[in-house]
Amino acid sequence: MTHETKKHATLVFVRHGQSVWNATNQFTGWVDCDLSDLGVKEAQEGADALKKAHFQFDIMYTSYLKRAIKTGNIILETLDQLWIPVQKSWRLNERMYGGLTGLNKVETVQRHGTEKVLEWRRSFDVPPPDIDEKSEYNPVNDAKYKHLNRKDIPKTECLKDVIIRAIPYWESDILPSLKHGKTVLVAAHGNSIRAILKYLDNIDETIIPNLEIPTGIPLIYEFDEHLKVIPAKDRVEPLQGRFLGDPEKIKAAQESVKNQIKHK
Amino acid sequence: MTHETKKHATLVFVRHGQSVWNATNQFTGWVDCDLSDLGVKEAQEGADALKKAHFQFDIMYTSYLKRAIKTGNIILETLDQLWIPVQKSWRLNERMYGGLTGLNKVETVQRHGTEKVLEWRRSFDVPPPDIDEKSEYNPVNDAKYKHLNRKDIPKTECLKDVIIRAIPYWESDILPSLKHGKTVLVAAHGNSIRAILKYLDNIDETIIPNLEIPTGIPLIYEFDEHLKVIPAKDRVEPLQGRFLGDPEKIKAAQESVKNQIKHK
Repeated sequence: MTHETKKHATLVFVRHGQSVWNATNQFTGWVDCDLSDLGVKEAQEGADALKKAHFQFDIMYTSYLKRAIKTGNIILETLDQLWIPVQKSWRLNERMYGGLTGLNKVETVQRHGTEKVLEWRRSFDVPPPDIDEKSEYNPVNDAKYKHLNRKDIPKTECLKDVIIRAIPYWESDILPSLKHGKTVLVAAHGNSIRAILKYLDNIDETIIPNLEIPTGIPLIYEFDEHLKVIPAKDRVEPLQGRFLGDPEKIKAAQESVKNQIKHK
Repeated sequence: MTHETKKHATLVFVRHGQSVWNATNQFTGWVDCDLSDLGVKEAQEGADALKKAHFQFDIMYTSYLKRAIKTGNIILETLDQLWIPVQKSWRLNERMYGGLTGLNKVETVQRHGTEKVLEWRRSFDVPPPDIDEKSEYNPVNDAKYKHLNRKDIPKTECLKDVIIRAIPYWESDILPSLKHGKTVLVAAHGNSIRAILKYLDNIDETIIPNLEIPTGIPLIYEFDEHLKVIPAKDRVEPLQGRFLGDPEKIKAAQESVKNQIKHK
């Protein structure tokens, strides 16, 4: 029997499920499209798993994008915890895909070539071209971002850029809640969750862009009183946390993480 | 043509619609029961009216009770404004009905007599008996209120008590948003809205307990730069605000307010 470290705080990540643009295979990023019916179902399954495990959250953090907000609200409603504080920040938004926004993935390959597209998708620090100033998807035209400094509104982002804007929020808002021993829900996106996981699990730059976080499956991190992650027994490298859900889904999620790392 | 005062800020009240306990005619108060299907429909109609009038909210205030939170969320989702900040406070909760909580209104009359029940419902400062310490509805047993000082958790409340706990929140949180010129949504309850209206419209203690705010119909207040209410042209005494919605519903709401005041 190993020495058990005492749990001080808990953080649960949930990546939102399918959006209506996933169906059409378009780069979405900061475009505020809704969950599809499947996306709602995925959120509900995550919510049911958290309910079965009797999670009581103290606070939820989410992005400015409705696919994440609604995923979080479905969880809170299922747990009968709609009353807890919810904080939203653009810093937890999905990666902003610049000039790729709105293109479907086939068009993108036709326009820019397979190699370039793979580089944008897989590299840590190569952003796609800037979004066109006049694009209907340019966030400078969106009421959500009117209160930001113009220089904080990205024209494009690589994963490194997401880390640069997400980690200050992690430090200013999420970490203090963990310091206070809270149980925290983060309902967010593939790349904003990657940004925090890179930091938490110290994952290499060559690996993190390819780490596919499964959608709608709660990923649970426990922290000791020094805010060090307590590695879960059923962790899967390079993550220190564990997935929650029915055993088959967890196994599939773990296999998927393993395969991605192997293929690298 | 009269001199037009310049609008500095806007406040919209929406009282949640029917809850599942309205159907069974029970005193609800702090019991966290859900909206009924009719309640959802009422919220949606209010939301549609606000959308038609192109409201853009900066912040929403609501209570800890899901019938108000969900009413607000239906409005924000309809307006595509789920991303705005939402603040929840127990100080915007419905009146806590003490020992009447959970009783249906017929039972209450049988137990306490018509006169007493009318007094509790219509008076400004006579609270019903305290809730039983061991009642399943006693809020001291509810996780929502664990962070409050025990003395702040009411055993019962009259409207005067609701004012005493709601107005500090009005002053500390809602009023500063109006000072900043914001457009504010308050999704709340009959008695927490009454508490603020008594204060805003300086309504007499003999009148306010009988003022029935219509459910799901937005009630709009505009403020000048000194935070004085600009009385609406189509106001109905004793309110200075105006209802928003289709003309027939507004007329019904206005008639209802007039009749209540007349019967007093």
